[in-house]
Amino acid sequence: MGKAIKLGVIGAGSAQFSLGLVRDLCLAESLYGSAVTFMDVDEGRLELITRLAERYAAELGVDLRFEATTDRERALREADFVLNTALVGGHDPEESFRQTATEYGYYRGIRLQTNFHQYAMMLSVARDMERFCPDAWLVQSSNPVFEGCTVMTRETGVKVVGLCHGFYGYRRLAELIGLSAAEIDEVQWEAPGVNHWIYLTQFRLHGQDLYPRVDEWIATKAEAYWSTFKGGGSTSQMSRAAMDHYRRIGVMPIGDAARTFSEWYYRTDLQTKQRWYGQLGGFDSELGWAQYLHGLERNVQRIRETATDTSKRVTEVVPPVKTREIQVPIIDALANDHPGVFQVNVPNRGAIEGIADDVVVEGKAYVDGSGIKLLHVGTLPEKLMQLVLAPRVAKAERELAAFRTGDRDLLLGCLLIDDYRTRSLEHAEEIVDLMLAQPWNRDLAKRFGSRRAPLPEIRLEESGAVPGSAAASPSANGQQAATAVASH
Amino acid sequence: MGKAIKLGVIGAGSAQFSLGLVRDLCLAESLYGSAVTFMDVDEGRLELITRLAERYAAELGVDLRFEATTDRERALREADFVLNTALVGGHDPEESFRQTATEYGYYRGIRLQTNFHQYAMMLSVARDMERFCPDAWLVQSSNPVFEGCTVMTRETGVKVVGLCHGFYGYRRLAELIGLSAAEIDEVQWEAPGVNHWIYLTQFRLHGQDLYPRVDEWIATKAEAYWSTFKGGGSTSQMSRAAMDHYRRIGVMPIGDAARTFSEWYYRTDLQTKQRWYGQLGGFDSELGWAQYLHGLERNVQRIRETATDTSKRVTEVVPPVKTREIQVPIIDALANDHPGVFQVNVPNRGAIEGIADDVVVEGKAYVDGSGIKLLHVGTLPEKLMQLVLAPRVAKAERELAAFRTGDRDLLLGCLLIDDYRTRSLEHAEEIVDLMLAQPWNRDLAKRFGSRRAPLPEIRLEESGAVPGSAAASPSANGQQAATAVASH
Repeated sequence: MGKAIKLGVIGAGSAQFSLGLVRDLCLAESLYGSAVTFMDVDEGRLELITRLAERYAAELGVDLRFEATTDRERALREADFVLNTALVGGHDPEESFRQTATEYGYYRGIRLQTNFHQYAMMLSVARDMERFCPDAWLVQSSNPVFEGCTVMTRETGVKVVGLCHGFYGYRRLAELIGLSAAEIDEVQWEAPGVNHWIYLTQFRLHGQDLYPRVDEWIATKAEAYWSTFKGGGSTSQMSRAAMDHYRRIGVMPIGDAARTFSEWYYRTDLQTKQRWYGQLGGFDSELGWAQYLHGLERNVQRIRETATDTSKRVTEVVPPVKTREIQVPIIDALANDHPGVFQVNVPNRGAIEGIADDVVVEGKAYVDGSGIKLLHVGTLPEKLMQLVLAPRVAKAERELAAFRTGDRDLLLGCLLIDDYRTRSLEHAEEIVDLMLAQPWNRDLAKRFGSRRAPLPEIRLEESGAVPGSAAASPSANGQQAATAVASH
Repeated sequence: MGKAIKLGVIGAGSAQFSLGLVRDLCLAESLYGSAVTFMDVDEGRLELITRLAERYAAELGVDLRFEATTDRERALREADFVLNTALVGGHDPEESFRQTATEYGYYRGIRLQTNFHQYAMMLSVARDMERFCPDAWLVQSSNPVFEGCTVMTRETGVKVVGLCHGFYGYRRLAELIGLSAAEIDEVQWEAPGVNHWIYLTQFRLHGQDLYPRVDEWIATKAEAYWSTFKGGGSTSQMSRAAMDHYRRIGVMPIGDAARTFSEWYYRTDLQTKQRWYGQLGGFDSELGWAQYLHGLERNVQRIRETATDTSKRVTEVVPPVKTREIQVPIIDALANDHPGVFQVNVPNRGAIEGIADDVVVEGKAYVDGSGIKLLHVGTLPEKLMQLVLAPRVAKAERELAAFRTGDRDLLLGCLLIDDYRTRSLEHAEEIVDLMLAQPWNRDLAKRFGSRRAPLPEIRLEESGAVPGSAAASPSANGQQAATAVASH
């Protein structure tokens, strides 16, 4: 027998996620006797998931208590663990701005607004934890894990661990090069970085480096593979974009780094995306994302039907098999001192050379009752740092500075410096105005204020002639004039 | 009497620079008795400047010896100081590539090639110094001072100081707000950063902050000032771009940060430049640069005439008044233990928070016979770091990594990550191919190699239909489909 805990789940209305959580909890014997408090702002969904959880536990004869609340404090009080899976407003705020942003040259939208709402929500949860359960662990599962965990660990004293399942991409890769299921389980791998930007720096089977087999696959099998490649789902790991990116930086992007968040130049428009990610244009193209949301909706529908049809056993619809999510295993490791190695997101504190100590990085960690200790990584390949991680961390820092200060110039800077789509200062000012004018963004609009008045214009002569200039006028070819006198 | 030194001048054929140097040396009593060795690959120019220098010293009755050599070793052997002012190929390599680059969407060219040639030349000089005069100081005056000094101090043991006169911009600003000449001399100022990106963090007269007077000028006098503004020369410090940039980051850009190297969005094309920098479009527009080169040529012509006309006294054409350059004063401070505070470029070593120790930064330093000590700066304003210096240093690091490794992907990365003009991967590959195909760049082409073969293409269905996709086809509005199911 293990230790009974109190687990508070924030944003529990995410039916698919919560049902997976219930499955894993019901199959974790050492956590039996625990109490789970589901919290969400959506009472209907909360009701749905709580009923299902109770039936699921009852059908398996498992001692777990579930309660529902719309009151965050109630979910946090005396909690040993808090699991935050909330996405403010669901997918609606992002979707509602996509079309406008696309029309303004920002294909598929900009994430700034969604991120800022998430940071505010995460910080508020962490601050409430400081009051109501200062010793609890916060397991952060909703995005953005990287910046969100960074801001929470910088600004509160709460113990935070961010989790994401993207790292499993290494298994798809192992499959691709012909490893058996048993062999895949024995692969030694490491994929450090920051969440959604992780790279396979170690990839071995029984002491043998597997990278030569990846190279061989690219040289001999990629052509046939991509001749019928649709993309989407777990095949995203093997997209042409992922392989091209690998060739350029020397280590394989894993999971989201391979499908959604890879370099901008694979993602400028649907046609470009299709060239690199296949017919679907990748997970987050207009096609891929619609398919994703559709699948999500179908699942929710199925869950809803199961919930209302009390004649059926829930365990028949959702068989009691562990998911591959690591929330429950890591809670078990921390609560019951069951040691294990997990892929986590925690402050760097020297693990990766060249990234500041207080930036939350992703990597393998040893976890037991005493806490979470990143395995030291050291120096990452120079191309990975220079071309991916350094720019990515710098972008995050600018975004977090804008969030923290509410400074409009820093917000503009996120678009002027980090977004390749920005064409001019006016372009950035316009998209910021449009973003802040969204009904979802009233709080942001208040914080960031409005555009400052422009400076007086310089009065230009209509002829364009410049007194004393050898090159005379803009219509003359200044270039040739310059070359002619370039003898220095 | 001071100490007689041996000064080696590399790239001494730059007549304008060398003649200024001769003036300052002839007026620095504590350096009398010194020997100057002018070195250049251009014998004609070398001859010209050496004769002029000899005549100048003779006219003033000053004890200085000048010799000319095309042999670098001779200039370096037993040197106490080496002054490097060389620009490989003069302005020609950059000019020759401008038109092609502009046609490919890189208005006014890309500096990468010029920079790489300069880094190689600087490193080679510093390495020769390690052999021939390991205890000498290297005074680096040709560009790029920032990256060049960084690479030399990282890769050799030579004592390097980079100098640039851009910091004098603070005087223009002081003039603008109405300070008298005597008051300007008493201004207390600091302008730290990296060379060409320095910002006025301290600006006081007799303990009074002068920034409110700058703000007042912008509010009440800018309109009238810009109604007749041409730009160019020392007025660049007061461009509309400089003032806008100041309002956005809270500290005033000084010198080149105000005129040439400011934010990309002030410089996208001639029209935009004219809006921000005045009729000339700034120092480095096709108009401004042609004027600059023309002026340079005129000066060289004048110097050439003076050199050939031995009936005239050189001191009549070039009166013996100290220039505002600080090469000679700093050499005097180091050689003769004459303490002084100078604006220099040396490794950061903790002076500016958030910049690595081995990055060469610009700032004020206390200089005497024991060496050069940066005045500690501490934390710079967050917007200055986030919006200017952090991206600028990151860009330099990528460029230096590309230079050091000869890695083509890092070279591409300089365009894909740091150049707002790059539109796609292909665009970057094309401009790199074009750059490396320039006759000036044969050595670079050999180093960086050619484009790697592309991966096999993904076979796309012509209909564009995606099996199993809810959104059906690219012609359907994926956006609306996504929004419709976004209830999560």
